[in-house]
Amino acid sequence: MTDKVRIALDAMGGDFGPEIVAPGAALALCRKPDMTFLFVGDEARIRPLVEADPRLKAVSEILHTDVAVRMEDKPSVALRQGRRRSSMWLALDAVKARQAHVAVSAGNTGALMAMSRFCLRMLPGVERPAIAAIWPTLRGESIVLDVGATIGADAKQLVDFAVMGSAMARILFDIERPTVGLLNVGVEEIKGVEQVKEAARLLREGGFPAIDFRGFVEGDDLGRGTVDVVVTEGFSGNIALKTAEGTARQIAEYLRAALSRTLMSKIGYLLAKHAFDELRDKMDPRKVNGGVFLGLDGVVIKSHGGTDAEGFASAVELGYDMARYDLTQKIQQGLVHGAGSTVAEISTRRDDALVEAAS
Amino acid sequence: MTDKVRIALDAMGGDFGPEIVAPGAALALCRKPDMTFLFVGDEARIRPLVEADPRLKAVSEILHTDVAVRMEDKPSVALRQGRRRSSMWLALDAVKARQAHVAVSAGNTGALMAMSRFCLRMLPGVERPAIAAIWPTLRGESIVLDVGATIGADAKQLVDFAVMGSAMARILFDIERPTVGLLNVGVEEIKGVEQVKEAARLLREGGFPAIDFRGFVEGDDLGRGTVDVVVTEGFSGNIALKTAEGTARQIAEYLRAALSRTLMSKIGYLLAKHAFDELRDKMDPRKVNGGVFLGLDGVVIKSHGGTDAEGFASAVELGYDMARYDLTQKIQQGLVHGAGSTVAEISTRRDDALVEAAS
Repeated sequence: MTDKVRIALDAMGGDFGPEIVAPGAALALCRKPDMTFLFVGDEARIRPLVEADPRLKAVSEILHTDVAVRMEDKPSVALRQGRRRSSMWLALDAVKARQAHVAVSAGNTGALMAMSRFCLRMLPGVERPAIAAIWPTLRGESIVLDVGATIGADAKQLVDFAVMGSAMARILFDIERPTVGLLNVGVEEIKGVEQVKEAARLLREGGFPAIDFRGFVEGDDLGRGTVDVVVTEGFSGNIALKTAEGTARQIAEYLRAALSRTLMSKIGYLLAKHAFDELRDKMDPRKVNGGVFLGLDGVVIKSHGGTDAEGFASAVELGYDMARYDLTQKIQQGLVHGAGSTVAEISTRRDDALVEAAS
Repeated sequence: MTDKVRIALDAMGGDFGPEIVAPGAALALCRKPDMTFLFVGDEARIRPLVEADPRLKAVSEILHTDVAVRMEDKPSVALRQGRRRSSMWLALDAVKARQAHVAVSAGNTGALMAMSRFCLRMLPGVERPAIAAIWPTLRGESIVLDVGATIGADAKQLVDFAVMGSAMARILFDIERPTVGLLNVGVEEIKGVEQVKEAARLLREGGFPAIDFRGFVEGDDLGRGTVDVVVTEGFSGNIALKTAEGTARQIAEYLRAALSRTLMSKIGYLLAKHAFDELRDKMDPRKVNGGVFLGLDGVVIKSHGGTDAEGFASAVELGYDMARYDLTQKIQQGLVHGAGSTVAEISTRRDDALVEAAS
């Protein structure tokens, strides 16, 4: 491997395949020139697209395969039919073989997660993977996880999510000690399920020097950006993510309808067009495209299936950042630290006891 | 009791107490004249407000008490200190004693739910209460429950929520057979927790003629208004509700900032002001103010604590509708029906067996 970040692309993933993946990679390359690509998929479709751009051509290789996971394939079907030969699998396999630093796919989430677990395996000590989403907030951006890799999580798994999410936050936001909150509900006394309360206790007492734990946050703290990292299990995380997306679409729809109703409001819209463009830009899902799979022994980025080249480029650049700044290593350090401090305390106590016994 | 709907008001609840409750009741009375009120709380503060409005005065009684539950009281503290003597308790007690058809309070949710369970008790056959919220959607409105009465629910409890939510939908939307969906996540194979899948099976097979069960819905179906009633347990329901509120505030904030940035956008805003007023109106939380407590032997409405008179009036009118059209009875019919059909099937099978044995 070179000093450049090498990115394996599942060129057949998403609703459009290479027609979006190749131009997306080219766009990302303009902004981060120290990348190289391994395109995996149907060479006959990929080659002309890659060769159309001399800069892209210069840094790209193509690995041909006829097999592609379809967007509607169930994970079990995808695994059975696509293992060891689909473009999705071979992109992941390149990461496993250390021939690429990161894999990016716009293919279906369930299949990508199943294959990632199967191909890359979990990091030692991590029981469950998580999908981390980048959430636009009033303060900037936050990381929210898990938004749907698995359902339910015990206290230890929630703590792992906190460690993994803050490793990602350190890279993405370039801060030493990200603030972390556990998503909970605001009903007094029955406040939260047992796992969430226990996770809070562990995070408070467990000695995680690189985490600034802020306790519980609620659903409306997500948009407010109260903390850098919001931790929850995949069921509620997925519901929160989709509810926010749905609400944003709903308001945009109301606004569109209201502004096109009278001539006056149409003129008003034209005059304030710049403001609306700004709003659209702020809410542009392409800008924060890319879910990061955490907990695996390798970096995997999931792009939205229906995104365009600009959106796919964001996912590629996100993968670049995660690889360039050693996400996996940062997660491992966090895990060792959390566990390590406890182990260290225990050994200190044991040493003390030995000293006492010997004296 | 008269033919009029009699409403017990916790006059001390909410951030402002009688100063909002009395004008709110007066507003509601303008729109629905066949109401009478029982104001419960500090008579010295309530009487001048009620007597300021001759129409309100004519239909109101005041029940004096010195004790009020505070917004920050924990449910256990509220119960200990406010039982049998606080304005909140006495309003509920009037419903229990059939001296009022419904109680409305803007007091704190946890205390109101705890007191409601304690004072009114659950309906026979219902294990858990639920808080139902009215959710503005692109199609109009939906009912979402539970948004935070309790945490977690088994399949039977989720089915009860479906029955109770559709009873409320029949009244609120005036439809015979509301559509119902179970909130779930869109990750294939691990699709949903066991309870949610089991509840879906029961709703499909259990014989609920008054429910048009549509299967699973996701977070983004909430704003879309895909179904009339969305059923989920209180943890994810509360997170969905607060996430949607937070997202709406976040977008409003972006919009305000963008529109006030340049002179041109300010002029545009003025020209399109009517459209923005319409949008604000559409998103006005006062219009859909009022959570309905379901599953109790009596109707209880929770108003937002920080609402104004207009918002409190919405909560009062919601209570009026629920009492006028017999919410509690409709729920009981639904429960009997669901259970009844199964019992009927069992007796049919038993009869058949007896006939066979006898022949």
